Amino acid sequence: MTLITQARKNNIPQALKIVAADEGVNVDFIVEKLQSGEIVIPANPRHSLLHPVGIGSGLRTKINANIGTSPTESAVDNELAKLKICVDNKADAVMDLSTGGDLDTIRQAIIAASPLPVGTVPIYDVMVNSKSITDVDADKIFSTIRRHGEQGVDFITVHCGVTKDLVPLIESRVGGVVSRGGSFLAAWMKRTGKENPLYEQFDRLLDIAYEYDMTLSLGDGLRPGAIADASDTAQLSELSTLGELTERARARDVQVMIEGPGHVPLHLIRENMEIQQKRCKNAPFYVLGPIVTDVAPGYDHITSAIGGALAAWYGAAFLCYVTPAEHLRLPSLQDVKDGIIASRIAAHAADIARNLPGAAQWDLNMSQKRKALDWEGMLGLAMDPEKARKYREDSNLPDSPEACSMCGDFCAVKICRETV
Amino acid sequence: MTLITQARKNNIPQALKIVAADEGVNVDFIVEKLQSGEIVIPANPRHSLLHPVGIGSGLRTKINANIGTSPTESAVDNELAKLKICVDNKADAVMDLSTGGDLDTIRQAIIAASPLPVGTVPIYDVMVNSKSITDVDADKIFSTIRRHGEQGVDFITVHCGVTKDLVPLIESRVGGVVSRGGSFLAAWMKRTGKENPLYEQFDRLLDIAYEYDMTLSLGDGLRPGAIADASDTAQLSELSTLGELTERARARDVQVMIEGPGHVPLHLIRENMEIQQKRCKNAPFYVLGPIVTDVAPGYDHITSAIGGALAAWYGAAFLCYVTPAEHLRLPSLQDVKDGIIASRIAAHAADIARNLPGAAQWDLNMSQKRKALDWEGMLGLAMDPEKARKYREDSNLPDSPEACSMCGDFCAVKICRETV
Repeated sequence: MTLITQARKNNIPQALKIVAADEGVNVDFIVEKLQSGEIVIPANPRHSLLHPVGIGSGLRTKINANIGTSPTESAVDNELAKLKICVDNKADAVMDLSTGGDLDTIRQAIIAASPLPVGTVPIYDVMVNSKSITDVDADKIFSTIRRHGEQGVDFITVHCGVTKDLVPLIESRVGGVVSRGGSFLAAWMKRTGKENPLYEQFDRLLDIAYEYDMTLSLGDGLRPGAIADASDTAQLSELSTLGELTERARARDVQVMIEGPGHVPLHLIRENMEIQQKRCKNAPFYVLGPIVTDVAPGYDHITSAIGGALAAWYGAAFLCYVTPAEHLRLPSLQDVKDGIIASRIAAHAADIARNLPGAAQWDLNMSQKRKALDWEGMLGLAMDPEKARKYREDSNLPDSPEACSMCGDFCAVKICRETV
Repeated sequence: MTLITQARKNNIPQALKIVAADEGVNVDFIVEKLQSGEIVIPANPRHSLLHPVGIGSGLRTKINANIGTSPTESAVDNELAKLKICVDNKADAVMDLSTGGDLDTIRQAIIAASPLPVGTVPIYDVMVNSKSITDVDADKIFSTIRRHGEQGVDFITVHCGVTKDLVPLIESRVGGVVSRGGSFLAAWMKRTGKENPLYEQFDRLLDIAYEYDMTLSLGDGLRPGAIADASDTAQLSELSTLGELTERARARDVQVMIEGPGHVPLHLIRENMEIQQKRCKNAPFYVLGPIVTDVAPGYDHITSAIGGALAAWYGAAFLCYVTPAEHLRLPSLQDVKDGIIASRIAAHAADIARNLPGAAQWDLNMSQKRKALDWEGMLGLAMDPEKARKYREDSNLPDSPEACSMCGDFCAVKICRETV
């Protein structure tokens, strides 16, 4: 039974109680929103170390960090080091997007070590473990998905909305398809002439998802990969399909969230959130960025923090981080950390703006420490205490607990003390 | 004569022609908006190396980088190195906020070396060169301002709106006063019982500003320094005063812009921009950040990029950068660079959103290079080509011009080529 089914039977699962306690809300609220589909709790019962996390309406905005190997960098130890950074820096979830090395072993190692919900994109596994595109069929796709469920994966990206009729729309795009799964499925449909099995056999997918209570993250295989493609017909047509599939999943007690773009200019973010809420009946929206300009490779943690803050303020529930390495290389350990902090800043800024109870209290505490020139207090409250402390220690300071190299004695806080 | 006076006499100064050419707009537009006060061109005729820059309505959003010494770090060479970083990384203006070392010499060196407009905060100079607070009087303040004009300073921050009646409002604030100039003037008024000379003798200030065509940047000495203080009575009362002074400056052909916050949560940014536009009759708004959360010291280039993007989209013309060192220490050379790039990202994202002609073309060009897997083209178009190149070079790549460590052969762009 999935969490939804259990909750429907007035048997409140422990995961819901944990989420309610973590969020400081009543458990009845979680029960209600889980049943309506406005909250998901990705929690495969086989993921033994999991501390469940709620994503959706009325909850703190969550952030996901993508880790995983590539064909050129495939050491499992490095991925476990990335996972440790995710946990230490308070990411809310991780996705294993590995495409290099022994994928089964890497995935198993990550799940075994992760207290965070773990997501995957099973179609990558299919791609990597096929000799050629025509070596792939529906059975292979669904058996791979089942395997991920058996291993304890909590949520899976499935590009069910990339349908055959949408493939011709790709041609007129500036950026084409930038989703690996989306491009693979489009190429497969073009080559075989068949419909996307994840769409055509959606009920088969629901059976597996139900069995392992894997939350479906309906992927946006046709998300814009260029500002010029934002909100185009390909993207919005796929979203409509995802809305239909959301209702089918909910009718089967399968948890579902929706993935979103991508590259979106500032002025189109709000409309993107509103369209999703309408078409997908308030299913939690899980956005990648969005990135608000194409021109800053090396700084896409910043372009996406700008977009993510707006998106979360206007309703996105779950931000997928983007690292400085985006568009350039596989992220390093430092890139993973930088991506997490930038994404957490966006999420927290949005939580303040949407007046989430308690969110601004953290800021109030920090500002009170600043006013008191209580440096230990400030460093302890910092989102990244380690970097803040290093910055302070690297400056030339006179030996005084209140000293600061920015203004020295010309400190507004000190001068202000003499005034009031 | 100031640029405004010259333009009124149908004598179009060269600076306006340069700005029109740089912005790709008709010079008549610049003339009209300069006269209405919606555009300023800070350009002291004594600043010989200056390449003039226009700030305001209908123009590209500009960004300023603060440099300058502090009592603990006062080497002039280091400030010239920061200036070089500002020029190389395409800041649009710099402010010398020095408070340590020989301020006159440092200022002179920066002006002599800078093609960018240079701003200062003369009250810092007054503070540093006074034995005590009671050593300061109106004559000292105005003679210091004149000295800055003689040296070729293009724009000055003057906290004219911090009036005696507002000082009691400071007491109830969480963050007090975080503007050094604002706190100094508040302390001076409290100690002497006198009104702020920059307010009381505003005409005297206008005389000096007119003589050197120094653009007045009416400072927000009472800007909120904590999310909890955003849009409070102290801030908005000061802004109303600045609106009155704007009209007095315009009547005297003195260029004027308005400084703005500071710490502002996302949901109050738009209203802050709209209030300023109304009360200050569309004078260019020069905002510090805004920073959208208090809790991320070490990352305030990101908190301010989020706020700055929104502010500029909703009407701010000029973004003052914030570096990762904010709230922690005097910025290093790397901090200066990080601050500039983050601020440029915010400005450019806003220019796309407000549909500034040509802004999105850069993004289109980049996306076309991405689609073509033209790495040299991508790196050349990057906002920071140096960092982007280093990222690419640091990854383990097979020897192929199209290779990338992110996805290897599982590259959506490559797969997509096989599809369309």
